[in-house]
Amino acid sequence: MNAGELQVLPVTGMPEIAQGMSVGEEIAARLELQEGDVVVVSQKIVSKAEGRVRQLSSVLPGGEARRLAAVLGKDPALVELILEESREVLRAERGLLIVETRHGLVCANAGIDSSNLPDEGTVSLLPEDPDASARRIRAELSKVVGVIVSDSLGRAWRLGQSEIAIGCAGLAPLDDWRGRADANGRTLEATAIAIADEIAAAADLVRNKASGVPATIVRGLGEYVTDDDGPGAKALQRARGEDLFR
Amino acid sequence: MNAGELQVLPVTGMPEIAQGMSVGEEIAARLELQEGDVVVVSQKIVSKAEGRVRQLSSVLPGGEARRLAAVLGKDPALVELILEESREVLRAERGLLIVETRHGLVCANAGIDSSNLPDEGTVSLLPEDPDASARRIRAELSKVVGVIVSDSLGRAWRLGQSEIAIGCAGLAPLDDWRGRADANGRTLEATAIAIADEIAAAADLVRNKASGVPATIVRGLGEYVTDDDGPGAKALQRARGEDLFR
Repeated sequence: MNAGELQVLPVTGMPEIAQGMSVGEEIAARLELQEGDVVVVSQKIVSKAEGRVRQLSSVLPGGEARRLAAVLGKDPALVELILEESREVLRAERGLLIVETRHGLVCANAGIDSSNLPDEGTVSLLPEDPDASARRIRAELSKVVGVIVSDSLGRAWRLGQSEIAIGCAGLAPLDDWRGRADANGRTLEATAIAIADEIAAAADLVRNKASGVPATIVRGLGEYVTDDDGPGAKALQRARGEDLFR
Repeated sequence: MNAGELQVLPVTGMPEIAQGMSVGEEIAARLELQEGDVVVVSQKIVSKAEGRVRQLSSVLPGGEARRLAAVLGKDPALVELILEESREVLRAERGLLIVETRHGLVCANAGIDSSNLPDEGTVSLLPEDPDASARRIRAELSKVVGVIVSDSLGRAWRLGQSEIAIGCAGLAPLDDWRGRADANGRTLEATAIAIADEIAAAADLVRNKASGVPATIVRGLGEYVTDDDGPGAKALQRARGEDLFR
């Protein structure tokens, strides 16, 4: 690999992850990590390892969940879980439920979905604290690497989902260029780059090519990898009340 | 490069681009393209090549621009250009002007900015038709490659900007998994991946490392590269009236 280049490598051969398994150890056993690598792990296997999987038939929907489910044409048990995972409903129309999760992520269905789960009738919730999940996975790895827990989110004005970092550790999530000069010495305007989200997107390109690849290594971004765990992906959340679109 | 991997390569040594120059030829002269590569070109050099640069002092702001500029604390000439480039103002508050551009892109300031321009007091506008720009650049290249014209956009609920595809050619911009089954045979829910946006984000990671790199090659995604120009990045725009956040 030449200077300035980037490589994105799939971690192949990962086993089906069950509660209690060490995601970090499973990755390290399959691909030799290098210092400065960024390890991008799909939310789904992190949730499985943390036991964040629910049987819909065991959920008792409350009145608000039943009311919303009828309006939206959704399963009342699923809506109950979404509401339990959320602190604010931003939109509930046209079959869509856009919420702010308890961790502060604005997304559809609180990130709950049913794909890539072995048992019929089950759904996965997002990790309780995705930054803490990233820190735990990082602690399982013996090299100084960054770790991202990623999930795919829809966008308000664009079609298709794009992968973002819902959690991270050992990585500067935001590269703040404000105050720096451009190539011509002119001060750059508001230009902070959401590095962690862009890394998650790059990793998804490889995951998407071969389904069943829940972990990816992005190599060549060592300048963003930090010795300490850092602020996490929480630092990429716009504070409540500071956005223009509620 | 092994199967399943991805490489992101900077095109180094690009000259300052002036009106009338061939962006495609400048890239091809500096990096040997392979069939199936995706060439990601920064909006800024495309705009320069197309003469989409304006001197602010030559702009005569109208009444609406002067009124908004006073409210927002912005240059009235800049606001005039933003309004000329827009078909709808979504938000004008807290110093921010969020619009839908004439091409249908929802973004701040209609994508107009002043960084990386040689002359003081000038700004660059987005290309007139970014998909057409991508098609023209593609026609300048002798290999079957995909071309993306990219720009960095802010996000409603997340901090930092992320690079997206404002134009593309020779590339399937959206990978639609709806109706396909997951690894366990369960039908996937709404899962269309915004491939072109994720490629733009991956490319930005390399551009961001070394400023002054306005073009990047993403290698290993030949399955998304098409013989024909395809629908362009327009296919990633959610139709007006179909979003929940105006």
